[in-house]
Parts: sequence; structure tokens; C-alpha cells
Amino acid sequence: MSGRLTVIGLGPGPSRWMTPAAQEALEGATDIFGYRSYVERIPARAGQRVHASDNRVELQRAGAALAAAQAGCRAVLVSGGDPGVFAMAAAVFEAIERGPREWRALDIAVEPGVTAMLAAAARIGAPLGHDFCAISLSDNLKPWSTIEKRLRLACEADFAIALYNPASLARPGGVHRAFEVLRQGKPGSTVIVFARAIGREDERVAVTTLELADPAAADMQTLVLVGSSATKVLPREGGALPWVYTPRSMEPL
Amino acid sequence: MSGRLTVIGLGPGPSRWMTPAAQEALEGATDIFGYRSYVERIPARAGQRVHASDNRVELQRAGAALAAAQAGCRAVLVSGGDPGVFAMAAAVFEAIERGPREWRALDIAVEPGVTAMLAAAARIGAPLGHDFCAISLSDNLKPWSTIEKRLRLACEADFAIALYNPASLARPGGVHRAFEVLRQGKPGSTVIVFARAIGREDERVAVTTLELADPAAADMQTLVLVGSSATKVLPREGGALPWVYTPRSMEPL
Repeated sequence: MSGRLTVIGLGPGPSRWMTPAAQEALEGATDIFGYRSYVERIPARAGQRVHASDNRVELQRAGAALAAAQAGCRAVLVSGGDPGVFAMAAAVFEAIERGPREWRALDIAVEPGVTAMLAAAARIGAPLGHDFCAISLSDNLKPWSTIEKRLRLACEADFAIALYNPASLARPGGVHRAFEVLRQGKPGSTVIVFARAIGREDERVAVTTLELADPAAADMQTLVLVGSSATKVLPREGGALPWVYTPRSMEPL
Repeated sequence: MSGRLTVIGLGPGPSRWMTPAAQEALEGATDIFGYRSYVERIPARAGQRVHASDNRVELQRAGAALAAAQAGCRAVLVSGGDPGVFAMAAAVFEAIERGPREWRALDIAVEPGVTAMLAAAARIGAPLGHDFCAISLSDNLKPWSTIEKRLRLACEADFAIALYNPASLARPGGVHRAFEVLRQGKPGSTVIVFARAIGREDERVAVTTLELADPAAADMQTLVLVGSSATKVLPREGGALPWVYTPRSMEPL
């Protein structure tokens, strides 16, 4: 049997946001690798081996999946959301670069998925309807000075901003420091959305302003969306959350 | 019958990248609205009305879909990719803001999808594996000075960059001017990926450097990915395209 490795994303929550391509890869897998809380979301199938691992062992997990593919297995490595955004696909190629030369000849495919910021944006309207950036606050492999510089420049560029992993275990105070930088770079009226566990049972969404936002509202399941100067709040009737959107047109910066 | 509007994305190409949620919305629709080349990708269903429109009439198209929902139809408005990224969701909320007050009480849902940059990234590896931004070069509602400023600051922030709509009819020379700005802001060795029609029959992918790239390679079907300083090229055997990825860790900027 000729082995292969497919790297997939489960989407941010319900299976209705997982692509048929990812579903197909799961159904054809002999071996499934992933962080424990992701593989637990996958229904068990007879004859499949499941290799659940802890957080923060991305390179080892990627290496194990590559070794399985080399041994002739149909290995699938799962991420939440999209595997290419702050997730496992980069770890796979890093493992290949550091690994045995034969890994470069393996049959590898990455299947795109719905990343968390797109689900959060859709839930509240269209806050990423114009130019935007995505910054992770969690990566303990990235110096704080880099995060701070990127936040400052993202404010100056007037991007809408998606903050991933605002409250990681490795850097629990990061979100507070990030909000300090944002408050220096954007007006207090800037729209802020805390989007927690979107699409799941414990979903929680709050819309506020940079001035009023409490960064402590962001836990490990939260994605924070920060508006550009053009982002608008559109009130709705009957106590519903407002719509938040960034229009397609804008004035010169 | 109580009307509703669902805004969906078809994904960047094949139906295997369209979410089950989008599929379900299409199956339950009485009326489908969209740009002609998108609605043509949807199989016809008995009893469904299809309202195909030309490009560049986004607000009218959104208004027509909202009016249908108000009239009691189950309207679905389709974009390519994800509806929230340079697509129809923002136009819907803009139309609501300008439209009759009753539209604010309509039952509206946006379903997230796989946006083009995620499919392009997956095809070539994981170039968006670390902080990145998305900038549209096409919007004729956005002044060039804003695009140029954002490109400059994105270079300074050392983001990987996804350039959407590099060669729009409204601004055909934009991609050449954009590359001039990139060449001032990033080293000539920066990785460039031209990802055309990803997932479709006429897919074409090229990996080059900023120094060697010919911006004319980007047509209206192309998404351009620009690496950060950390983005790497991993050669493969046997004439295959190399893998391109941005590792999770990085040095201070």
C-alpha cells in the first residue's frame, strides 16, 4: 500500500462547517493524528487507529503522522478550523525540513477549511469585509516585541484585526498588553467583538468598543475581532445583537 | 411563509470545498441571487428561481435578495469563496443600512466558507502559517493611496500578504504598482506564489521570488501570496512544485 498524509481542518465547531473534502479524508484514513480535543470530535470508525496527543507537541505529532505515511498508512492529521492558519500544516513542513530526506517524496495534501475568524465574522455580520490582518497572541515561539510591532503597524494601516489565541496558557497576560497597544493606536470608539466558541453549544458573542472592552472577557476559546475606522454597528430590533460590518468603500487614510 | 436571507460562499472551486451548511441553504432556497459566474456553478433544482446578475452591481443584488426575503421567500445570496471576505455579506449590511427600516428585523444568516487565500495556501503548503494580512487591489471604491499605505505598512510589519483581485477590470495596472511598493519594502528573495483558479480544471500555480516575479502573471482568476521574511521554500523530488511554508517560530523583528 502506498502511504499518504492529508492535513485537514475540522472547521471551528459543528460538522456543518467541515468541508466534504475533509470528511472524505477522515473516512478513508487508517490513522488519525491530532490534539486530543480535536480528535474527540471525530466519530469512531472500525479499524481506524486514533493517535491523540497533548497540546504543545506539534512537531512530534507531525513527525509521527509523517512516519505513519512513510510506513504505508493513510494518515490524516487534524486541526481545528483551517490547518494552514496558526495550526498543524506549518508544523508538518517544519518536520519535513528537519526530518529524513525521504519525507520530501511523500504524498502529502493539505485541505483548506473554515478558519475561526471567518466563522466569528459571519456570526456577527461582515467585519472582515475589507482589508484585514490576523495576528496570534499565543505563540510562545514569537517574541512579544514582534507582536507589539505588528499590532502598532496594523493600527496605523487601519486594518480590521483578528486576534487568535488571545489568552494562551503560555502568555495569559498577552491580551491585556495587546489591548494597551490597540488603545494607543486606534480610537476608543473602535468596534470590538469577543467571539467565543462560535457554532458550539457554549457560544457567546459580545459587541463593545475599545474604550469599554475588558480584555479579561477573552478566554482560550475566544477570537477577538477589532474593527477598522470604517467598521460600523447596525442596531437591530428586539434585543438581538447588532450587525457589525466593514463596508466595501472607504475614504483615503 | 416567513422569509429569510442566507448569505453563503461556494468555496474557491470544487463542491468538495463548499460546507454542508452552504449546501443545505441552497437546497432549501426558493430564490438564488448571485453574480452570473457563481450561480452558473450551482446545479438547477425544480421550483427554484435563479436571479443572475452582472458584476459591479453588488448593492442592487443585495437589495433584491433582501426584498425577496421581506416578501416571504427563502432567499440565498451566493459569493465565491467566503461571503465575508471582499464579497457579498458587507454589501448586504450596507444595503440594510441604506434601506427601509423593516429590513433590520429580517431573519438573516451569514454562513462562513473557505476563502481563496486558504485554498491557495493549502495547495502550496502553509505560507499563511504565521501572522498575515489580506489586501484587495481591485476595489474601485478604495483610493490607491490607501492600498499603497497598507502595502508599505504590511511590509514593515513583515506579514505574509494575500493580494486579492490583483488584476481587476477597474484597476488593471494595480498589480504592477503593488509590486513596485512590495519591492521597496521587502527583500528581492521574498517568496511569491501566483495561485490561479485553485481547485479548478484550469488551475495554475507558480512559485518565484519578488525579484524575478512578473506581475503580469496575475490575471483576474489569480490570488498572489507574498511571503514574510520567515517564509521558506522546501524543494521536492521529481519536478514537483516546492512546498512553501511559514514556520510557527520567528526571530525578533
